[in-house]
Amino acid sequence: MLSRTTVIAASLSVSAGSANPSKSNYSRLLGLNNNLSYTASNPVIVSSNSNFASFAWNTSNNSKYTKSRMERFTTRASPQPLTNADELIGSVQTFIFDCDGVIWKGDKLIDGVPETLDLLRSKGKRLVFVTNNSTKSRKQYGKKFETLGLNVNEEEIFASSFAAAAYLKSINFPKDKKVYVIGEEGILKELELAGYQYLGGPEDGGKKIDLKPGFLMEHDENVGAVVVGFDRNVNYYKIQYGTLCIRENPGCLFIATNRDAVTHLTDAQEWAGGGSMVGAIRGSTQREPLVVGKPSTFMMDYLANDHRFAWLGTD
Amino acid sequence: MLSRTTVIAASLSVSAGSANPSKSNYSRLLGLNNNLSYTASNPVIVSSNSNFASFAWNTSNNSKYTKSRMERFTTRASPQPLTNADELIGSVQTFIFDCDGVIWKGDKLIDGVPETLDLLRSKGKRLVFVTNNSTKSRKQYGKKFETLGLNVNEEEIFASSFAAAAYLKSINFPKDKKVYVIGEEGILKELELAGYQYLGGPEDGGKKIDLKPGFLMEHDENVGAVVVGFDRNVNYYKIQYGTLCIRENPGCLFIATNRDAVTHLTDAQEWAGGGSMVGAIRGSTQREPLVVGKPSTFMMDYLANDHRFAWLGTD
Repeated sequence: MLSRTTVIAASLSVSAGSANPSKSNYSRLLGLNNNLSYTASNPVIVSSNSNFASFAWNTSNNSKYTKSRMERFTTRASPQPLTNADELIGSVQTFIFDCDGVIWKGDKLIDGVPETLDLLRSKGKRLVFVTNNSTKSRKQYGKKFETLGLNVNEEEIFASSFAAAAYLKSINFPKDKKVYVIGEEGILKELELAGYQYLGGPEDGGKKIDLKPGFLMEHDENVGAVVVGFDRNVNYYKIQYGTLCIRENPGCLFIATNRDAVTHLTDAQEWAGGGSMVGAIRGSTQREPLVVGKPSTFMMDYLANDHRFAWLGTD
Repeated sequence: MLSRTTVIAASLSVSAGSANPSKSNYSRLLGLNNNLSYTASNPVIVSSNSNFASFAWNTSNNSKYTKSRMERFTTRASPQPLTNADELIGSVQTFIFDCDGVIWKGDKLIDGVPETLDLLRSKGKRLVFVTNNSTKSRKQYGKKFETLGLNVNEEEIFASSFAAAAYLKSINFPKDKKVYVIGEEGILKELELAGYQYLGGPEDGGKKIDLKPGFLMEHDENVGAVVVGFDRNVNYYKIQYGTLCIRENPGCLFIATNRDAVTHLTDAQEWAGGGSMVGAIRGSTQREPLVVGKPSTFMMDYLANDHRFAWLGTD
């Protein structure tokens, strides 16, 4: 029997800085000094975004998924002010952490994080680390956690690069079909691990199109899915290739790792995010993508199944 | 007093092939053998698209503009089958022609066009040629018409590159502000002619970003408008630059030459259109662009004022 779990859609200002985490430290990490609210019987989700109305994350404009998720929660319990951190922690089995702005900012670890994670682990809590940044695979994220001095298992990481491959697996996407990738290495590595054939990605980063009269771009008719994530080498070649596959290959899927407007590639400023690349393909195909990262229902359902905590948890 | 004018939202199959245009030839050029409908008291619009519900053009998903335009027309008259070409031509003052798929396809002139234009001119009709392709300026389009053997005056051409500059003029965009361009030469040439300072365009086509820790892209705080059109050299540098201007420069405008999903850069296939570049910036800014090309109200109003025909014309 699982413990009762709780959701927090948190306006989180992570400022716990002591080496010895006290109640007030992890209270702050969990956002207890801010405008918090929670609904009972769900996993704790710790996010860096502030708008409860968009559930835990507010970086995507995928209001369809956001809304349906919200409806599922709000039908169960209305948000209430969170006043007792010990009670919350005691009642929760699984803590889901956003990475950017919660665990790190760019390449900098945020103060208070190691102690708080240690404390939660010492209490036997299950931890999950989610990120919409698809440039790295789970294995690569594992190394990043290690570099920052955090002891995090690969299995505890849910990156949107992994989500894309996991989604294809979940629908039994045929192994003899190919995937065209507008994105970086993380997506390719996860597709490879899952046993899928792919085209595109960094390899198409330097390609140009010479639009002379009569020129036609050939494309592989065996591409059955186009996966789009953040891609600092996005170009017109990739846009046209992905567009041709989606428009001309019958049944070809349009999968987005995320639609985040901005991302924190460096800690110095906000950078145009995966929403740009997805927006480009949306603009030329006039098709809506299936989003597998935050705040998609796929991610929520996958975590619920994989980690066996109850979204509709009971005592 | 202007002649009565008429709108056609035409499913146009241009197949007139005779050297001597007969009634049946220009009837076919005007789509009279197809599923035509018209409303009275508007200029004739000859387009290659088939869906009346989206007014004359259906390549953009800018339903807001499309809808408002439709409402303006449908309140006056319901579409009716067109049966008498002579009557139509006799009652119309101004003919507005789409270029791609109507006058030419890629670099090929469509059969029957020269004779039909000559015939309309011989009857004293006013002709306007509109195109959403922003890669060329009006002057450059003039040369294209010349190359194809058509006698078309620069003033008769309404390209979306020109529309962007005309829009800035119409709102008295300050001459000491700058324009950042994601697009090709046509936009730059029209901005220059209108006396505006610009950045970006082809010059930023080869730029890359090295995302090392702490790196920050500087941007010009004096950029007051970002103009986005088709750009075969779109890259992450341009996307981030345009995004920074729109997100961080107070009041910065986001202007799209068009949102066409596809375009006919060569006659061999459909190519991802300006909707891709606009979609990329929309995805990272979460802002809706102001569209100046087809099917925007700006274009309609500009043509109405400039050519002095009556959108709400009377006998």
